[in-house]
Amino acid sequence: MHRTKVTVVEEALDANNTIATANRADFDRAGVSVVNLMSAPGAGKTTLLERTVRELPGVRVGVLEGDVQGSMDADRLASLHVPVTQLNTAPAFGGECHLDANMVRTALPSLPLDEIDLLIIENVGNLVCPSSYDLGEELRMVLLSTTEGEDKPLKYPTIFNGADIAILTKMDLAAATEFDLAAAQRNIQRVRPGMQVLKVSSKTGQGMDMAVRLLEETRTSMLQGLG
Amino acid sequence: MHRTKVTVVEEALDANNTIATANRADFDRAGVSVVNLMSAPGAGKTTLLERTVRELPGVRVGVLEGDVQGSMDADRLASLHVPVTQLNTAPAFGGECHLDANMVRTALPSLPLDEIDLLIIENVGNLVCPSSYDLGEELRMVLLSTTEGEDKPLKYPTIFNGADIAILTKMDLAAATEFDLAAAQRNIQRVRPGMQVLKVSSKTGQGMDMAVRLLEETRTSMLQGLG
Repeated sequence: MHRTKVTVVEEALDANNTIATANRADFDRAGVSVVNLMSAPGAGKTTLLERTVRELPGVRVGVLEGDVQGSMDADRLASLHVPVTQLNTAPAFGGECHLDANMVRTALPSLPLDEIDLLIIENVGNLVCPSSYDLGEELRMVLLSTTEGEDKPLKYPTIFNGADIAILTKMDLAAATEFDLAAAQRNIQRVRPGMQVLKVSSKTGQGMDMAVRLLEETRTSMLQGLG
Repeated sequence: MHRTKVTVVEEALDANNTIATANRADFDRAGVSVVNLMSAPGAGKTTLLERTVRELPGVRVGVLEGDVQGSMDADRLASLHVPVTQLNTAPAFGGECHLDANMVRTALPSLPLDEIDLLIIENVGNLVCPSSYDLGEELRMVLLSTTEGEDKPLKYPTIFNGADIAILTKMDLAAATEFDLAAAQRNIQRVRPGMQVLKVSSKTGQGMDMAVRLLEETRTSMLQGLG
């Protein structure tokens, strides 16, 4: 009687994880670092992109713009003279409120991976579902604007818990909106102990040097990981 | 040979619509007007609720609070001494990014319909998916805060197109955020021609009388519809 070796599959990967793993392998092969940028609508993802991309020295940046429909953000970014690819979730992907690994994979042939070092994926504006979908990225950033309120990390803990870095945007409006910075920091640490938090304002320029340095470091640590 | 009458079902109602219709019938029977309040996270749904509920004369208000998890908003509203029911989409409903008719139906036994005239349902903070789910409401309001930017109606047209009223919140921050009011109005009218737009600030009180009057009118027109 034959005795076959029984392999127990410990973790049943769902389709999204399988495709995300394939995306990650392709990005690694091309030597491209990938950042997944997530936030509520209007928190300032595109503005942060505009500011940092302009100031990133010696790093060739590409952008994958996720939106339900339209190409308004991609049009804004086109003036930066970096490759921008628009990925719409409607109608091809049912008007989904988030990007998933398969959508990113569908966009891969449109991305000039050989010509960029850093790919920034701007997710659909939403604090819930984007957190559940690995896209194949190396780093997840979640933005929270002061105008949204300091309670949001507790109301949407999964997206903060699953991110590597939190960026507090619109710091110039903190006083006008009576934003409780200490409470925001506490709430973030409660859902994600030890999380690094940047405070930025694209209006005053506060923290922009830190944001740029962070993106540079992402690139450097990825290269070291490969080396 | 028998000839049976063939009924052509013109519109296949999905499960959500079927349940929404049942909800609507129950609300009508109880004489309760229902408003579905939708917006991005932090646009000011709860604050608008706090302000208007306090000033609604002679109308018994109840609130159904939709959140992914937690009861922070319900706790805030509890001090208003109106019945507040918390409905969490996690874990019972898979952590969904929106309310649907079945969730509202599940909450019905917890709502004191005989003791209220107006039920305000605060949806999960999200500009995408809530638009696709009829809850059985009579009126849909979508909030857009000036801090989110005037481009949002074009980026999230479905939620504006499917709403009856748009409310521009945080008008006190319009100057500081360089909010282009004329462009916002144009963008709203482009996706929903003829849409009524209120401009409010809970900080300065601007437009709060109009918001209160609107909720009163919703109640009155519903009673006339039944009479």
